[in-house]
Amino acid sequence: MSPDDQIARLRLIRSDTIGPITYFQLLARFGTAQAALDAIPDLAARGGGRTPRLASRADAEREIEQVTRLGARHLFVGEGLYPPLLAEIETAPPALIVKGDLSLTEKVSVGIVGARNASAAACRFARQLAHALGGAGLAIVSGLARGVDSAAHDGALDSGTIAVIAGGIDVVYPPENEARQQAIAERGLLLAEQPPGVEPRARHFPYRNRIIAGLTLGTVVVEAAPKSGSLITARAAAEFGREVMAVPGSPLDPRAQGCNLLIREGATLVQSAEDVIEAITPIGGRVVRQPSPGYSGATPSDDIDAAARRTVSDLLGPTPVQVDELIRQSGLAPAIVHMMLLELELAGRLERHAGGRVSLL
Amino acid sequence: MSPDDQIARLRLIRSDTIGPITYFQLLARFGTAQAALDAIPDLAARGGGRTPRLASRADAEREIEQVTRLGARHLFVGEGLYPPLLAEIETAPPALIVKGDLSLTEKVSVGIVGARNASAAACRFARQLAHALGGAGLAIVSGLARGVDSAAHDGALDSGTIAVIAGGIDVVYPPENEARQQAIAERGLLLAEQPPGVEPRARHFPYRNRIIAGLTLGTVVVEAAPKSGSLITARAAAEFGREVMAVPGSPLDPRAQGCNLLIREGATLVQSAEDVIEAITPIGGRVVRQPSPGYSGATPSDDIDAAARRTVSDLLGPTPVQVDELIRQSGLAPAIVHMMLLELELAGRLERHAGGRVSLL
Repeated sequence: MSPDDQIARLRLIRSDTIGPITYFQLLARFGTAQAALDAIPDLAARGGGRTPRLASRADAEREIEQVTRLGARHLFVGEGLYPPLLAEIETAPPALIVKGDLSLTEKVSVGIVGARNASAAACRFARQLAHALGGAGLAIVSGLARGVDSAAHDGALDSGTIAVIAGGIDVVYPPENEARQQAIAERGLLLAEQPPGVEPRARHFPYRNRIIAGLTLGTVVVEAAPKSGSLITARAAAEFGREVMAVPGSPLDPRAQGCNLLIREGATLVQSAEDVIEAITPIGGRVVRQPSPGYSGATPSDDIDAAARRTVSDLLGPTPVQVDELIRQSGLAPAIVHMMLLELELAGRLERHAGGRVSLL
Repeated sequence: MSPDDQIARLRLIRSDTIGPITYFQLLARFGTAQAALDAIPDLAARGGGRTPRLASRADAEREIEQVTRLGARHLFVGEGLYPPLLAEIETAPPALIVKGDLSLTEKVSVGIVGARNASAAACRFARQLAHALGGAGLAIVSGLARGVDSAAHDGALDSGTIAVIAGGIDVVYPPENEARQQAIAERGLLLAEQPPGVEPRARHFPYRNRIIAGLTLGTVVVEAAPKSGSLITARAAAEFGREVMAVPGSPLDPRAQGCNLLIREGATLVQSAEDVIEAITPIGGRVVRQPSPGYSGATPSDDIDAAARRTVSDLLGPTPVQVDELIRQSGLAPAIVHMMLLELELAGRLERHAGGRVSLL
């Protein structure tokens, strides 16, 4: 990947209204990030809005310089070093910022996540589990939160651990994890989706959780409440076709409720490293999921007539609707519908939701 | 059922070498227990052995008298009061001895079993679960052992509980459960397979466990070791096509290992009465399993020629073999093979094993 292509890609993903799905559709449609950047003003106009704020070349160069100064680097989807399992998910971060031992991305890995306020017993269990799985050759991925996450990283610090953080690569969070974060950046791998300097906010944590789920063959949940970030990670793992594992607990222990719920929903009950290895092994041998083909039609915007535009507009509204449903009901070619959605999105008039749904803003 | 038929049935089941499977095959073949008793000497001779010791009419009358004096009664398979779900299993006890509120056998029921040395928390959980399920209209079945069983009975004493005991109806075991056993005989239902006066021995407990599993729509295991009577009950429930449910626990708690193992094997994780009701409801509405058709051919022993006898003898040995396999390999009609096995069994030369297997003694 040429430096110019990297800069164009970074500009594209750092531009307003462009999330991973739009990014990959633009790249598939226009071939290169630069061609996509050039086409955006016209697409947004067709979608009935103003050109979104595009990141400048200077912005991108500044970020690359800053990341380099921090001893980190970018990884783009399509580069050999980009974690292959993560690249398979539809919402893979187009650019990651990583610091530390990059060879860890090539290891088979498993996520261990859980409650920040976990019991001492659960933290000890997570540490021992991570240690045993590390000894078996697996990289341990977690989110560097208090409690279970920290214990999992600690147990695998010698064998190899990847910490996915919600904020920028240079932002310590939570504060008491400063030494741990530094140790992982030196001996393990620290991984961030947000640019340097970004303080983690509530909306960043589900993004972080999808990366943990996407990086790994499976996620183990150790003590978690039914409504918790850990369960978001577990559900993302299930959505990506990865293994969901949970450590059970007594019905009398409120901190076990999330895990027991997952097991009732079909997660594999695990009690040991052997159980985890057994659970992920059938998947380990094969490609987990083929990358989504995404938008790859060749319909230029000019070929879409007014009647088709009206049909799609009429079918869209403030209530999210499945894109597949939209294609079916409109009777139009998928390539045409995808292009119109792209235009609307770039015009700031369309929002994408989980499960391939879209709504008008 | 006439008193004479009851006496003949009791003689048949109390005779040597006649277990439930042989009993039902004899009844199917000869129509009545008396006809079966009359035929046994000839069958045993054809099987190459001596006539087994048959219970006398006086033995049977004495038992009925004794049971009546104890305020209990017999229930025979085929009588309307015999628990219908229990009658469906292949090894249903041909005669039960019951004392207490017989209407409880008509209720939908669930078993709650577990470790004798269960934690105080598990016993409290079992008591509360039994209470809640009792309040929902279910009868609670257990084995009157220490620990979880006793707690389950206590929780359902007001709403209705059935205690299946390993020894005779008049034998208190364990000694500290004397008051509990008496209370259940008065306010619930006490149920025994063995005749009065029989002290429970190790081999009686798995028999008792199959009755708990057979009586109920499902069995809930609360704290149990991986090798324990509770797991035998759970496996019997699975074999009978009933629901197997287990209450999870921490991997760090050795007493939770049996339950966690069951969940790994596919048992439903339950944490509340609602979970149990949800698990058994799909089964509740329909017949769990059709009664096994058993042996119902009409081949008299005289019609079996020497060549057929030799074929079956040659296929049998000390290693247990599936009866179905025997039929297939012999190329003989199932009715002929079943009759020969019956003869060998009555002659004391054949042993029946779990899973429809037989071996020569």
